[in-house]
Amino acid sequence: MINTHIKKKYLISPNINDVTLTQKIKGKDQDNNFVKTTVIQEKSLTVFLNNQEIVTLMCIDDHPKYLAIGYLLNQNMLKVKDKIKSINFDKDIGVIVIRTNRKTDFEKILKKKVTTSGCAQGTIFGNIYEEIKKIRIPSKTKIKHKWIYDLSKKINHTPSLYLEAGAVHGCVISEKNNPLIYMEDVGRHNAVDKIAGYMFLNNIDPKNKIFYTTGRLTSEMIIKTVKMGMPILISRSGFTSWGVELAKKTNLTLIGRAKGKKYITLSGHHRVQKS
Amino acid sequence: MINTHIKKKYLISPNINDVTLTQKIKGKDQDNNFVKTTVIQEKSLTVFLNNQEIVTLMCIDDHPKYLAIGYLLNQNMLKVKDKIKSINFDKDIGVIVIRTNRKTDFEKILKKKVTTSGCAQGTIFGNIYEEIKKIRIPSKTKIKHKWIYDLSKKINHTPSLYLEAGAVHGCVISEKNNPLIYMEDVGRHNAVDKIAGYMFLNNIDPKNKIFYTTGRLTSEMIIKTVKMGMPILISRSGFTSWGVELAKKTNLTLIGRAKGKKYITLSGHHRVQKS
Repeated sequence: MINTHIKKKYLISPNINDVTLTQKIKGKDQDNNFVKTTVIQEKSLTVFLNNQEIVTLMCIDDHPKYLAIGYLLNQNMLKVKDKIKSINFDKDIGVIVIRTNRKTDFEKILKKKVTTSGCAQGTIFGNIYEEIKKIRIPSKTKIKHKWIYDLSKKINHTPSLYLEAGAVHGCVISEKNNPLIYMEDVGRHNAVDKIAGYMFLNNIDPKNKIFYTTGRLTSEMIIKTVKMGMPILISRSGFTSWGVELAKKTNLTLIGRAKGKKYITLSGHHRVQKS
Repeated sequence: MINTHIKKKYLISPNINDVTLTQKIKGKDQDNNFVKTTVIQEKSLTVFLNNQEIVTLMCIDDHPKYLAIGYLLNQNMLKVKDKIKSINFDKDIGVIVIRTNRKTDFEKILKKKVTTSGCAQGTIFGNIYEEIKKIRIPSKTKIKHKWIYDLSKKINHTPSLYLEAGAVHGCVISEKNNPLIYMEDVGRHNAVDKIAGYMFLNNIDPKNKIFYTTGRLTSEMIIKTVKMGMPILISRSGFTSWGVELAKKTNLTLIGRAKGKKYITLSGHHRVQKS
């Protein structure tokens, strides 16, 4: 059951009415009958920062601006204090150029890359690990037991490309038990980056937010959540040992395997309130 | 129900008895009770080719040799005809050094990277796209309707780290309805690369093999399957438009959403035989 009331409360959520994001494809089923099925449109987006080509991302072409900005932020190439001079997107060739007041040069950083275990984008530049380890997230924001169920339910009932075509991951930012920002992508890292870009450009405070993802809680998901300044991360999937270790080090509340009325908290129990 | 008879027929399959691959972690459940849960151990592996540092992969530390060799093959940095002079793995620091007779230099290629939409490793170097487009996979190998069910069932009943701890993807190479090589990893690309490395080092012919993956059929999964020379790719997950397009171009049989007795063939129907 899709709930359109829920959708209205979002600041931004998947646009299932945009026909360019999916495609009908003819296939054959197990009985050799022709069937039409809906698939996600995967596009390439090449990101330039000032005069330098940074990366080509395979993604859903719904929010190139948020994706590019969020990618650069999460890779430490754009700083929170940077002033963005211009953003130019050429849809036909799939190129976006971000220009800043500060001069940038990432010739060196582009060479030191760590290819991570999760879904795309899968690349974290070496120095980010060192930076993250020093962060301690403040403890103030709490999450109520009941909100964990509420959020899963509301998110599952929100119209999404996942429900339309599958093969995408979703990430949602909530305040208390209210989902506010819902992004999807073929790579869950793109979904995270789009959220980072949206929050940066719209000046949204991360400190009282809850981050929900459909993907697994591998180390680089923890890194991005901590880097974005959010205190609580929830997933319906599992976790890896490094993810848990990093969450403990940074005082992040990590809640995994959230399905139905069940979940496991692996780190930061003190933020979870029974009622 | 785990079937140990099935496991015996594999050339190689997940080693669930290796206690270093998982870890018991204490968490709290929804009722605030302490629970112990099994998580996957995520390790870093830095790959050197001759004198050059190529990449650091976040992975499961079960087959570093296959992973490194497969990664280099799938990135076009190692050629099928290359002679490998030595492989040195240092477990303590997570470094593997592959040495070849041919001199290599990837300073340029390392700069032109495309970060893809799927799970790790998520990076395909630009020139691979061009190479793949020209390949036409021969049509000879067939797959019987019934094998698709057989394979799913056998694979699901094989002892695996997925069943132990979750949070991993699996890839399996089969001949007819017999699974032979089963690799898992936190990133499904690592699982594919381990398979490529195993097949290369053990001289296994890809032409009559069927590739099964638990992950989604995004473009880079198609690219790797075609690059490895396998004619049939099956997944229980969905697909993206580019994945389907590439499969059609290269004459790859692409079967998705294979669950229970259902599946959809999106490309290369001619290889699927009703009985």
